[in-house]
Amino acid sequence: MKGKLIAFNGAGRPLELKEFTVGAVAPGEVLVRNLYTTICGSDIHTYCGVRQETCPTVLGHEIVGEIVALHESYDYRDLQGQSLQAGDIITWSIFSSNPDSVYAKQGIPQKGEGLFKYGHALLTEADPFHGGLAEYCKLRAHTGILKLPSYIPLPVAATLNCAMATVAGAIRMAGDLRGKKVVVFGTGLLGISCAAMCREAGATWIATADISDQRLDVSKKFGVDETYNTAVLKADALTEAVKNKSSSKGIDVVFDMSGAPEAMEAGVDILGIGGCAVWVGAVFRNRKIQIDAERIIRNLITIKGIHNYNFDDLKYALDFLSANYNRYPFELIVEKEFPLSEAEQAFEYAVTNKPIRVGVRIQPDPDSK
Amino acid sequence: MKGKLIAFNGAGRPLELKEFTVGAVAPGEVLVRNLYTTICGSDIHTYCGVRQETCPTVLGHEIVGEIVALHESYDYRDLQGQSLQAGDIITWSIFSSNPDSVYAKQGIPQKGEGLFKYGHALLTEADPFHGGLAEYCKLRAHTGILKLPSYIPLPVAATLNCAMATVAGAIRMAGDLRGKKVVVFGTGLLGISCAAMCREAGATWIATADISDQRLDVSKKFGVDETYNTAVLKADALTEAVKNKSSSKGIDVVFDMSGAPEAMEAGVDILGIGGCAVWVGAVFRNRKIQIDAERIIRNLITIKGIHNYNFDDLKYALDFLSANYNRYPFELIVEKEFPLSEAEQAFEYAVTNKPIRVGVRIQPDPDSK
Repeated sequence: MKGKLIAFNGAGRPLELKEFTVGAVAPGEVLVRNLYTTICGSDIHTYCGVRQETCPTVLGHEIVGEIVALHESYDYRDLQGQSLQAGDIITWSIFSSNPDSVYAKQGIPQKGEGLFKYGHALLTEADPFHGGLAEYCKLRAHTGILKLPSYIPLPVAATLNCAMATVAGAIRMAGDLRGKKVVVFGTGLLGISCAAMCREAGATWIATADISDQRLDVSKKFGVDETYNTAVLKADALTEAVKNKSSSKGIDVVFDMSGAPEAMEAGVDILGIGGCAVWVGAVFRNRKIQIDAERIIRNLITIKGIHNYNFDDLKYALDFLSANYNRYPFELIVEKEFPLSEAEQAFEYAVTNKPIRVGVRIQPDPDSK
Repeated sequence: MKGKLIAFNGAGRPLELKEFTVGAVAPGEVLVRNLYTTICGSDIHTYCGVRQETCPTVLGHEIVGEIVALHESYDYRDLQGQSLQAGDIITWSIFSSNPDSVYAKQGIPQKGEGLFKYGHALLTEADPFHGGLAEYCKLRAHTGILKLPSYIPLPVAATLNCAMATVAGAIRMAGDLRGKKVVVFGTGLLGISCAAMCREAGATWIATADISDQRLDVSKKFGVDETYNTAVLKADALTEAVKNKSSSKGIDVVFDMSGAPEAMEAGVDILGIGGCAVWVGAVFRNRKIQIDAERIIRNLITIKGIHNYNFDDLKYALDFLSANYNRYPFELIVEKEFPLSEAEQAFEYAVTNKPIRVGVRIQPDPDSK
């Protein structure tokens, strides 16, 4: 059996449509026919050369697919304990991780030794299928798999295993959100998903802050009470505005999905006593954040960083989306869709238009089958 | 009944020995005859004018005393649920706090509304006894009281309700310490207590860092495996040294008891994946701390501030000291002792010699009675 993929050879070089043999599965491995991939911000960073990855590679890690082949000798279960079989529609953790590693045992499998990440590995003749921009993906043992309910549209489900699961990790870090006042900085997919998850987790007042009015407007549809344009409103004014609007001495939880130092600093500044800042967005080099230690101490403030997520977070994300996919307009996420053969146009569209997500439909739309 | 106290009238002005009438107790109040007070670093800051307090006041909040009078209509219990009566030797929380306040209900009674702090209040004719440098202290309702076992020496017990309880709070913030590698920055009373508490909580490798070889030497007696002089060893070298010695990719938990920005920054730098920094010492204005957000995120690092402590922490501190007062040389804490009438000399000695603690014996030594 042969399968097509889009090879990425480095920033500035054209993407290449190639064909490789799809090998048999070993015990623990799962062969998946990719159905839909969304292009994540980090894919775009790699495409543009802002981020360096091993090349050649197959980009795309926000993927949903259909199981094609399992090894007969292995008892396959998804993260919910459900038995898996050919034909199941699934998503999976962006990594496979040795469950016996020290970090995995500490609940941080995403930092375990010998980690393998989909959409980030070297493309070779022997091992070509490990990214989303391909007809197939071969899952390694110790990948967290989840069967998907059929009612979640594929373009929405594709974002589960990166953006939404990462947000679920951030929500876990923030602790009990019931009755809390929350501000989310950055209103890309992580920010709007975070707002909606905070709402469903019981937060009573949720604001978003961004430099784009257009994105802030979208965020209003995701459970947000108030929006702040931080291009207009500077840190001190934001602090005052938020404190007045939230009728409190300070905010309980802030999430930074923006990666902007000014946003992280403003976030810590608006926290009240016992408040918590969860930092997610700043996964690139930037100037250091200036922190007033006395304020952190006297106000018993906590700052937590989270990168990627663990298997419980992925389950939480699916539970959230299953319960709420039609309560918030998640269909707005994918603003434009391309077939696999037009992956280059998909990237160019994303770079030029900065939509929340561009989708790549790997298999023809089932309705047109 | 009359009682003496030492009035503090502001930095640079002489301390004044004064006498006031000791009023009757209202329901919930407890009249205590102070036995022993240790002079805390913050008392010295106030004495020197580095820190501004309401004046006149009665300094001293690290106190142990004997119950003299209780109101007959009130059912007095200590934090362990034990009934209290005249003659009991006790310590108590440095604050009284409304148990119905929002923060008290969140486990942060030290930030509750209408907080009252011993050793920090205005000295008036009607309400003179609320500090440690006095023959009496009148405890308000909602003060957390603990009966003390007789085998803990008074000079050691005096430090329970400030230094040791604060360290207990920091230990709680750090989470499970079993098997962890820990570095404590700053080896005053908080630092050495922290090292010993980490050891008893199951930490497997404990280092201290300070700019004073003399203090580092003392810390070696409190369960410490390794010491680093940070006046000699700069941040990068410290990071390397600690990583090599601890045979790991990084440290699990760092405590900052020093308040030095360089120490807080170095502490965050030596943390490994999933590491936690607990900041305690920086309760004064200083330059901001420079934090690399990308490192915080990619390494899933947490930074937590803690100021003072809650009632559980005070109980934890007593449990720790009861079990370990003779396993570590806590008698080294009080390097010199003065009677109440020589409070001024006690402060001058503390300022000049920077001992871990100076003690003030309010009542004559029981052995000489």
